[in-house]
Amino acid sequence: MSETLLSSRNLAFELYEVLDAEGLTRRERFAEHNRETFDAAIDTARSIAEQRFAPHNRKGDENEPRYENGQAILIPEVKPAVDAFLEAGFLNAARSFEAGGMQLPTLLSQACFAHFQSANAATTSYPFLTMGAANLIESFGTEEQKRRFLEPMIDGRFFGTMALTEPHAGSSLSDIRTRAEPAADGTYRLKGNKIFISGGDHPLSENIVHMVLAKLPDAPPGVKGISLFIVPKFLVNDDGSLGQRNDVLLAGLFHKMGWRGTTSTALNFGDNGECVGYLVGKPHHGLSYMFQMMNEARIGVGMGAVMLGYAGYLYSLEYARERPQGRLPDSKDPTTAPVAIIRHADVRRMLLTQKAYVEGAFDLGLYAARLFDDTTTLETEDGRKQAHELLDLLTPIVKSWPSEFCLKANELAIQILGGHGYTREYPVEQYYRDNRLNPIHEGTHGIQSLDLLGRKLAQNGGAGLKQLIRLIADTAERAQAFDALAPLREPLEKLVARLQGVTLGLLTDLAQGKVNGSLANSALYLKVFGHAVIGWRWLEQAIRAEEGLVKGNAADVDFYKGKLQAARYFLTWEVPGCHHELTVLEARDDTCLAMQDAWF
Amino acid sequence: MSETLLSSRNLAFELYEVLDAEGLTRRERFAEHNRETFDAAIDTARSIAEQRFAPHNRKGDENEPRYENGQAILIPEVKPAVDAFLEAGFLNAARSFEAGGMQLPTLLSQACFAHFQSANAATTSYPFLTMGAANLIESFGTEEQKRRFLEPMIDGRFFGTMALTEPHAGSSLSDIRTRAEPAADGTYRLKGNKIFISGGDHPLSENIVHMVLAKLPDAPPGVKGISLFIVPKFLVNDDGSLGQRNDVLLAGLFHKMGWRGTTSTALNFGDNGECVGYLVGKPHHGLSYMFQMMNEARIGVGMGAVMLGYAGYLYSLEYARERPQGRLPDSKDPTTAPVAIIRHADVRRMLLTQKAYVEGAFDLGLYAARLFDDTTTLETEDGRKQAHELLDLLTPIVKSWPSEFCLKANELAIQILGGHGYTREYPVEQYYRDNRLNPIHEGTHGIQSLDLLGRKLAQNGGAGLKQLIRLIADTAERAQAFDALAPLREPLEKLVARLQGVTLGLLTDLAQGKVNGSLANSALYLKVFGHAVIGWRWLEQAIRAEEGLVKGNAADVDFYKGKLQAARYFLTWEVPGCHHELTVLEARDDTCLAMQDAWF
Repeated sequence: MSETLLSSRNLAFELYEVLDAEGLTRRERFAEHNRETFDAAIDTARSIAEQRFAPHNRKGDENEPRYENGQAILIPEVKPAVDAFLEAGFLNAARSFEAGGMQLPTLLSQACFAHFQSANAATTSYPFLTMGAANLIESFGTEEQKRRFLEPMIDGRFFGTMALTEPHAGSSLSDIRTRAEPAADGTYRLKGNKIFISGGDHPLSENIVHMVLAKLPDAPPGVKGISLFIVPKFLVNDDGSLGQRNDVLLAGLFHKMGWRGTTSTALNFGDNGECVGYLVGKPHHGLSYMFQMMNEARIGVGMGAVMLGYAGYLYSLEYARERPQGRLPDSKDPTTAPVAIIRHADVRRMLLTQKAYVEGAFDLGLYAARLFDDTTTLETEDGRKQAHELLDLLTPIVKSWPSEFCLKANELAIQILGGHGYTREYPVEQYYRDNRLNPIHEGTHGIQSLDLLGRKLAQNGGAGLKQLIRLIADTAERAQAFDALAPLREPLEKLVARLQGVTLGLLTDLAQGKVNGSLANSALYLKVFGHAVIGWRWLEQAIRAEEGLVKGNAADVDFYKGKLQAARYFLTWEVPGCHHELTVLEARDDTCLAMQDAWF
Repeated sequence: MSETLLSSRNLAFELYEVLDAEGLTRRERFAEHNRETFDAAIDTARSIAEQRFAPHNRKGDENEPRYENGQAILIPEVKPAVDAFLEAGFLNAARSFEAGGMQLPTLLSQACFAHFQSANAATTSYPFLTMGAANLIESFGTEEQKRRFLEPMIDGRFFGTMALTEPHAGSSLSDIRTRAEPAADGTYRLKGNKIFISGGDHPLSENIVHMVLAKLPDAPPGVKGISLFIVPKFLVNDDGSLGQRNDVLLAGLFHKMGWRGTTSTALNFGDNGECVGYLVGKPHHGLSYMFQMMNEARIGVGMGAVMLGYAGYLYSLEYARERPQGRLPDSKDPTTAPVAIIRHADVRRMLLTQKAYVEGAFDLGLYAARLFDDTTTLETEDGRKQAHELLDLLTPIVKSWPSEFCLKANELAIQILGGHGYTREYPVEQYYRDNRLNPIHEGTHGIQSLDLLGRKLAQNGGAGLKQLIRLIADTAERAQAFDALAPLREPLEKLVARLQGVTLGLLTDLAQGKVNGSLANSALYLKVFGHAVIGWRWLEQAIRAEEGLVKGNAADVDFYKGKLQAARYFLTWEVPGCHHELTVLEARDDTCLAMQDAWF
């Protein structure tokens, strides 16, 4: 049977040839692991994803959650799938042994999780959200909060959500209106409305723990006046048993383009003035806490976008191999047999583009996961700090690049299937619809571009950027060992050199207060920076492929040649195209900025 | 109330300032028309589209046609809408007075039709398909066939379809298997299965006339052995009354990503050996007949893609004007009021991009419609021939460019609405889903690129291409009258000059038999050629805008400035980016062609 979730050969390439997963087992935290335990975890993930998650992916899409008597009703296949995920321990894959986890590197937990993201984005989101909420309480909660809320989450009895957006405030969280009044007993009473809360209601767990952003009465205006609260659906008694229903009302469900299996809810907090919440950490620090979680979430979102792209790529590849249609341009004789469409050059272009986007972004997502491991387990504080700086810089790319280009891959998968791809009888149109969410949630594409250009580049005196430039130069230097890589290396070096100049110019403008002009074309900057990063990762993969070819394992030759061809596509077809955007950026072109409302 | 279907100011600009619609009234065929009759037809179209078509657009999407007892059931709103369309005469807008039509120029009938395409793509497809089928019979049918089938179609009592695709043969029609055996009475008995037949069943008309491609027993292999048949759902008696049910079975419905209000059917012809068909025209000439119709259909498909883009653009523009969120980068004070998102530079970029795509393609579609009028009503045969040559060359662009870039506009509209854009509570995600069909049907994007590069360019000794180059040069020359247009004109001239060289090289390669290599990157060629054409049309619009500004009507200043800014966006942000694709084409880069199946 052909693989449908991801290429396991490619995953092994990433883990053991590119990202040195085995090197992690020499660190104390991962000392009890080895390649066998890693592979066993991956096998389990693939098996559960294939058997429990993938089979109801379409059914979940066709049968959205229903709102009945104030509750959200799901199709019956979701709970057994999530239960199997929980029983296998994936909710806590990266958590320590003592805390009930598998103590896997994040690199491996992300590699396992990728299978579920590919098989069924909607069902996977329930544990994903719970992991995010649990990590927040683990990082910033009191011991009492951990005992009461975190432990049941780790046990899989309570699930979690993130409740940020309000009807009038999405990207601009500084304007949220949900209020939290202190009560006599040290708890708070919340009042406000939240929308687009994924997993805001469902019948999968005993309780749902909402992580809610709200403002205290004495809050300063803006983002520095936002606090974080735990607001459970059911109150929890001192002995851990469930208490009364909290004043959190499911006001309704949203009906989405895709990702339909996940409830997207409107929640009313405190309609009856009795919504109990618990302050997490210090007052007014909620947004910074949330952003720590959100940075992890953004890697997860990026990987989710990759995996929807991956699923579509593999499906369209299989289809192109099996579907006969037409003949090659130089042999139009209608009495000859039609060829499989993979033999048509334009279909190959669409497949190669998908491969370049999906495997390039897959590499970056796993690279980021490994960087995350470095932030926690590198030996020196300086090493951990550096890893942090680089990860911070790369996060907007890890989130946004797959959201744009693996979505584009989904579009190409539909095109390869033609009329069939347009029907819901085939899965590729759903992959597109599911993936279309990713450039929107967890910070839109526009927000990511402002985060990169307006914040991340200059952070810590540009330490992350300097590191990235050094790493790219190091890869380019190693690429020189292979003559065949020169035509791949040179376009990257040329782009990065010019990008550095443009970056310096923009940062100088920003430092001089020319804020609106410098940031006006941030979307172009995001694209070029992303292509430089993915180009770098493809050059790195190409080096590993050349090294693999040198080893001369005959069974791997095709695999490595495919890697080299995809690298060639990305570095010679895509990377040089970015010079046009750099020209626009260099010119501080104000075409969009100068456009007036009245002129539309 | 803001306009939702298209900007009527922009339509007037196209008709009366760019395309000289009034000039057409000096031709004999249109002598009874004038600007007032044109505008009256447009007003009627807008009114019916707004009141009868737009209101059930979402309902039709949410309530797909159902298959019940061998029939397709639609929501009740479709029939009154289509009836209003028929009663107002739009089915025959371009047909002569004697034949029961309005004898409008195609330019005007297309301008009227555009309103319906914007309001409700699915419901509009029923009359659209009928118009195509009717035109086929009108062009190639016998008088008897016209009396029996065409007249009731003109009367709106019979509807039509195009039945080409079979389960194993879509893009490659030479491989169709449907057979037609001559019967003793001069009719034929058809046997075969067709899929993706839009409008293949519905309760909107007394009868459905299928235009079916099939092969006669003595047919030569390939496309030169395909014949065209009329196959009615109900046989028609000599007196015009309906006879018995023909042996055409509705085998099932397809469930699509979008365009859900249109039945997409699987039809079985001749399951019981009694499917009666009537040969149209000469045996084995069916595909060439179909292509004449298809070329008209492709303009219609292109305009359909434009109008879905237009609807999304106008909706997201209105939303951006009304939705407050965040503050400008240089004024982050949270105590100030949020600004409407149209004031954010990146939102303006997304709106301006949509405007450039939609209004550029709208101009091209109407330009093509006017060219169609020239093919039939220009005075000299030479003039008509030239119009034909140019229209033939442009047809792949008219069909494919909006299918790609107005679809991209839809993606941007979703992005502007953010989380709301992703929900079905707002219309923009449906526009995307509806529009996603357009790069697939009536010849995929890949087919269009081969048609352009492998066929149309060299046709008639390159007469169409030479004409286009002359027209672009003429526009560029007229642009020199306005200094402000120099920065818009120059990038177009540069691109077109280089494109000519690349084209010559590719045609030379083709002539030398290097077929596979020359056509391998046809998708890139299609994109660059399309951008050159749209760039030309934008420069033409910019000239008209400058001329309008000179006239000094204060009420129009904003409109013209918007035109100039969109032209600037397209010609300086988009056109220069095409040089990278030209570099790939110049190099005859074989990255995709050389990719091997086994390497994926």
